[in-house]
Amino acid sequence: MSTSRSRSADRIERDIETLAGPDYTLSGTAICRYAYTDVYANTLAYFTRELEAIGFTVWQDPVGTLVASNVGRGERAFGIGSHCDSNRNGGKYDGTLGVVTALEVCRLAHEDGAGLPLRLISFLEEEGSGFGQMLLGSRIMLQRLTDTDLTEHIRDEHGVSFWDAAAAAGYEPKRWRESIRELDGLTGWVEVHIEQGRVLQDTGNRLGVVEAIAGYVHGDLRFGGRADHAGATPMDFRLDAMVPAAETIVELERVANEIGDGVVGTAGEVETSPSLINVVPGGARVSLDLRSVTGVHLDLCDRIVAFAKDRAAARGVRCEWVERQRLAPTPLDATVVGALTAAAAATGEPFRVMPSGAAHDTMCVAERVPSAMLFVPCLDGLSHTPAERAEPADAALAADVLYAAIRALAAP
Amino acid sequence: MSTSRSRSADRIERDIETLAGPDYTLSGTAICRYAYTDVYANTLAYFTRELEAIGFTVWQDPVGTLVASNVGRGERAFGIGSHCDSNRNGGKYDGTLGVVTALEVCRLAHEDGAGLPLRLISFLEEEGSGFGQMLLGSRIMLQRLTDTDLTEHIRDEHGVSFWDAAAAAGYEPKRWRESIRELDGLTGWVEVHIEQGRVLQDTGNRLGVVEAIAGYVHGDLRFGGRADHAGATPMDFRLDAMVPAAETIVELERVANEIGDGVVGTAGEVETSPSLINVVPGGARVSLDLRSVTGVHLDLCDRIVAFAKDRAAARGVRCEWVERQRLAPTPLDATVVGALTAAAAATGEPFRVMPSGAAHDTMCVAERVPSAMLFVPCLDGLSHTPAERAEPADAALAADVLYAAIRALAAP
Repeated sequence: MSTSRSRSADRIERDIETLAGPDYTLSGTAICRYAYTDVYANTLAYFTRELEAIGFTVWQDPVGTLVASNVGRGERAFGIGSHCDSNRNGGKYDGTLGVVTALEVCRLAHEDGAGLPLRLISFLEEEGSGFGQMLLGSRIMLQRLTDTDLTEHIRDEHGVSFWDAAAAAGYEPKRWRESIRELDGLTGWVEVHIEQGRVLQDTGNRLGVVEAIAGYVHGDLRFGGRADHAGATPMDFRLDAMVPAAETIVELERVANEIGDGVVGTAGEVETSPSLINVVPGGARVSLDLRSVTGVHLDLCDRIVAFAKDRAAARGVRCEWVERQRLAPTPLDATVVGALTAAAAATGEPFRVMPSGAAHDTMCVAERVPSAMLFVPCLDGLSHTPAERAEPADAALAADVLYAAIRALAAP
Repeated sequence: MSTSRSRSADRIERDIETLAGPDYTLSGTAICRYAYTDVYANTLAYFTRELEAIGFTVWQDPVGTLVASNVGRGERAFGIGSHCDSNRNGGKYDGTLGVVTALEVCRLAHEDGAGLPLRLISFLEEEGSGFGQMLLGSRIMLQRLTDTDLTEHIRDEHGVSFWDAAAAAGYEPKRWRESIRELDGLTGWVEVHIEQGRVLQDTGNRLGVVEAIAGYVHGDLRFGGRADHAGATPMDFRLDAMVPAAETIVELERVANEIGDGVVGTAGEVETSPSLINVVPGGARVSLDLRSVTGVHLDLCDRIVAFAKDRAAARGVRCEWVERQRLAPTPLDATVVGALTAAAAATGEPFRVMPSGAAHDTMCVAERVPSAMLFVPCLDGLSHTPAERAEPADAALAADVLYAAIRALAAP
């Protein structure tokens, strides 16, 4: 087993380093790989060659999500994969490591000779770098968009619609609804991804078995007071918008800890207006990112918005909550999670069953297919940066565990 | 008296409206009037004409501060004035109303015929809009700069040194140290200025007698934690730089109220880095503006910096305090304040003895000359905006009170 994992690690490292080369990124200093660029096409061509070399048939859905299988299209198979587009200032591992590890599972199946039926999927445009919409390929596949979204609302940075860009790249966007058929016959789905957090590293684990993906609420608290001269306005003449905003930031941490249950709350963006050292803030904005896998982040949201409005009102400051987006938590499949957990335990390597705080294409796939994920540790939790690092040996362990779990699930 | 004040109000309004015209500002929507521009020269020419018309001799110091007197240069006289340059997005009243009101006092003296010796000064570049340095003309006069400051450090937005700009405008910057002589023989000094706060308006007073000008400390608290993914990082794995920053903003208000004694503390600029909704703040910056007339703002500074460092250290977050600038409080002269108070009381109009939270040229003049100030209310405390408003009738009251106070001080 160790010899096999070492060979897997070498192949995974070769794939990752190849795809970090100049043919596969628009930038000399980061991975920049977006839908319908030449470097993205080169990346799909690389996977196509590698998969065809081990006997897989490779095709694409009507908009450019890559699919490959060692059995016929639509036949029963277990699904594996991720995405291979990048963030705007991306690293080598986010997404790509998941497709590369899935490719390695295909190689293991090929070498094994047992004919385990597999289907690899590499979703188009997960990061939203090309068209400003996250999970675009998987949302298209799950029919979560409309024709108008694709022809009008979703555009690249030059204003070209997704529809026109896909057509110009040789795809058939008018057939986009057929993409759902790529899930036909799937008996299960597992996506491998870097953790994008530091829990595995800091707890000394080499693998994470993901049992649920957190839902989230994104929005802004906007406080409106009155801008006054900082020198000429005594403390008791002020309507300082930033003070209740600061109280709310402190309370957010306190209430998140009080609720527990894995809920997280972050005030990532904070700004005052007019933002001058000698002017009392007339306005303040605090963004909130609230997440949980159980739904308690909605309680956190209610409590924090109520606290903010109370504290503001007590000072004569206005406060409104403007929600940007919300996404429900995605529970993952207990059978698939159980098979991954058993396979991980069998290796003797340290692993952890955990939630995913970040969103993934699996949130869409799980609507139709029993799904789970595997996390590989990444250095200091860094992602969406060229400083992103993960160990090929950990990805090889993930490939090994995943292959074992799929075999166990396929066993009669 | 009422007839005289009504005539003063009309003249003050005419002066203010004239100087808001297109010959006197670079902008069609705001007052934009900076040292050595044509519109600034036009403004000095306006005051020169008006003062010469009532028998005053008018000259300028070696860098362009305007001086006028109805007695010989250097002879005993009472000083009055302010500045007539503007903020970058200025209104009609900040500075200019003080020079216009001083001009009105000169008119009252002329009409009175009693020959009260007066000297009007309109300081160059108080706002720092042209060369980025506040109180520039009065600091030059009080010798608070060096040759190197003027030839090297102080430059306009195009990189031209103050020295070269002054020379190009026809002045003699090499003689700048002679400017101090403009204070020779002054028996006292009073500057009239809009309040730039809302205390007079909100307390129903028409005039403020300023007994001290607050000193201040300006600086930044910089917190350094660790940026992590907001979804993938549990609460107890975080080093969020913004939370201790928020605790400090709340504590600033609490301690300022506890200290009392007119101290004010403002966190006007607040920012996080990387400032993304889904990233735990790795850095946070909070600006502090701390002021008092008694010096207790230095205690406030010590207590807040210590609090910030304690709270940061308790979470493993770094915190440093970077001071930008400090200026000591300026006590004003009890005799001049007393004369203004008596004259204000004699009018029967509501007035208030108060500190100035904002800095003024009088902070420099008071080093050499017994000084005070008079504040005129301004609408909602607004200044440094085209929305700035003050009542000519209130400025006429200030002129009346100031003329009476100077006569009282000059009486044997």
